[in-house]
Amino acid sequence: MAGRSHSTSRPRVTLSDVAELAGVSVGTASRALSGNGRMRPETRRRVKDAAQSLDFRPNQQAQSLHTGRSWTVGLITTDGIGRFSIPVLLGAEDALGAGRISVLLCDTRGDLIRERHHLQNLMDRRVDGIIVTGRRTDPRPPLSGLHDGIPVAYALSPSTDPSDISIVSDDEQGCGLAIEHLLGSGRTRIAHVTGPAHHAAAADRARFTERLLNDASLGFATGRAHFGDWSEAWGRRAAEMVLRAAPDTDAFFCGNDQIARGVADTLRERDVQVPDQVAVIGYDNWDAMTLAARPPLTTVEVGLTEIGRIAALRLLEAIDDKPSPGLHRVPCRLVVRDSA
Amino acid sequence: MAGRSHSTSRPRVTLSDVAELAGVSVGTASRALSGNGRMRPETRRRVKDAAQSLDFRPNQQAQSLHTGRSWTVGLITTDGIGRFSIPVLLGAEDALGAGRISVLLCDTRGDLIRERHHLQNLMDRRVDGIIVTGRRTDPRPPLSGLHDGIPVAYALSPSTDPSDISIVSDDEQGCGLAIEHLLGSGRTRIAHVTGPAHHAAAADRARFTERLLNDASLGFATGRAHFGDWSEAWGRRAAEMVLRAAPDTDAFFCGNDQIARGVADTLRERDVQVPDQVAVIGYDNWDAMTLAARPPLTTVEVGLTEIGRIAALRLLEAIDDKPSPGLHRVPCRLVVRDSA
Repeated sequence: MAGRSHSTSRPRVTLSDVAELAGVSVGTASRALSGNGRMRPETRRRVKDAAQSLDFRPNQQAQSLHTGRSWTVGLITTDGIGRFSIPVLLGAEDALGAGRISVLLCDTRGDLIRERHHLQNLMDRRVDGIIVTGRRTDPRPPLSGLHDGIPVAYALSPSTDPSDISIVSDDEQGCGLAIEHLLGSGRTRIAHVTGPAHHAAAADRARFTERLLNDASLGFATGRAHFGDWSEAWGRRAAEMVLRAAPDTDAFFCGNDQIARGVADTLRERDVQVPDQVAVIGYDNWDAMTLAARPPLTTVEVGLTEIGRIAALRLLEAIDDKPSPGLHRVPCRLVVRDSA
Repeated sequence: MAGRSHSTSRPRVTLSDVAELAGVSVGTASRALSGNGRMRPETRRRVKDAAQSLDFRPNQQAQSLHTGRSWTVGLITTDGIGRFSIPVLLGAEDALGAGRISVLLCDTRGDLIRERHHLQNLMDRRVDGIIVTGRRTDPRPPLSGLHDGIPVAYALSPSTDPSDISIVSDDEQGCGLAIEHLLGSGRTRIAHVTGPAHHAAAADRARFTERLLNDASLGFATGRAHFGDWSEAWGRRAAEMVLRAAPDTDAFFCGNDQIARGVADTLRERDVQVPDQVAVIGYDNWDAMTLAARPPLTTVEVGLTEIGRIAALRLLEAIDDKPSPGLHRVPCRLVVRDSA
């Protein structure tokens, strides 16, 4: 039947086949392979040899009824679009796959009813643990209605409960890399253009940047951070505003790469040399933005894949009854290109 | 223990609890709930009432040993980056979730050894079916080493085996929408700038475009399609070349949105009015590109989420022994903005 057969197909070997070849009952074969039950060592050996010669793969469903583990982890993402959560998911999938653990993907699209439905389904499937991720760095309430004993790790979007395991980006250290780089190249009149003030990613980065500038006895070039949205169009508009308010601005540190690209475009169109006259640094290291910008953007890379990987490792430890509660921060790195 | 307990936690109700409340053995309770085995109707009723009053959720692992179905589908993606495959995955997850089927996510990163490992794991877990997706529209060989009876649907990247179930984008119809729109607004000197000639997405779109132009007694403005890469930088360079070779070009139809954005930038910087003097149409409808471009881009939207959704539905039919073998094409739609 189409879609069902391939020349490379082979029939599935069952436990009965193994039992028959070894000359034992199915029950004995099962106990021999699971390591349970008492039997003569040569019987166990014979069953194992038969299984090997037939390339028998045990049914994991049946196995997990014995071990009480499903070797499955639920991955709940609230981010239907995925630019942020997908690298996190892939990092987690990579770390779990190495441990032969499979990932059940659940997309809640930010909807609480969908989240409950998925959570119930994951519990019905007896997942060993759950990773929760989102598109924002804002803290989120812990999963509600969770059974006892199912560990959870929150990745990128931390849990509001400080006793939960949360893995986040170290935005303070990331802002430090950018400001240090700008100060190191002699910039002292630094403007900050970022996203909406009610997003933690914007508010946090603005606060950290202000503190870092104050530590160097400086302030924002325009006296304040400029909050807007995460778009290029906002970057272009904000650059006009900043250059009007503080024409001696010699650097822009931006809350994301889209804003930075918009700023760089405005500077370019006003014949301001980047980076000679004004430096520009972005945030995220989104290659579609940073590489296409003129000039290519220096930016702070958030280790999204690493956040996912560490969330998976912390979750595995928690499943193994060795949890590390609290907030874990994953460092950023500065990717230096041509704009600063 | 941190990460393990919440104020909202509740202990897991077991089948033993149900059996105890109903005053029957665990075996009887199991048979009553599964609908199997003979017993008095009032006994079955009593067990079901007990299960309901305790909010008992059956263990799906144990259930699937009875039904022979795992209610799980494997989703194999070869695209670690995910801009194309992730919308496909989410469309599939959405369609499967509605049928209470869970999705096991496997990322092979284009590596054949990883693919085999994941495939083996999915077979060990007795998945009901598998969806395979990639980042390219190029055909791919069917999964090898598959057990009999596991249906597969290929999404976005079709299988080279025409008897497999493959769901792809209808690029011919998509190119038709773009060319029809340009001809309808009186353009007759249409250039085509696209990605690498060895990518099916580039070669197919160029071939379809040429045929459509020929059908209107036209040809490419520059006599040929321009193959390069999928970047804005290539779009900028290609626009310079085209304007030099055929200064009377009145439209660019581009193989993706990044190329179209690069073309629009070059036109803008040469003070060519878009769309009054020259129209620009992209492909994909990637909002980060189309909305940030000046002017915002008219583009052909590929129904990636719909491709995933239909792949899931076709897979469910195949699982239900009603397969629809062959290639299924999902139509594109034209998103009209300001560039054409």
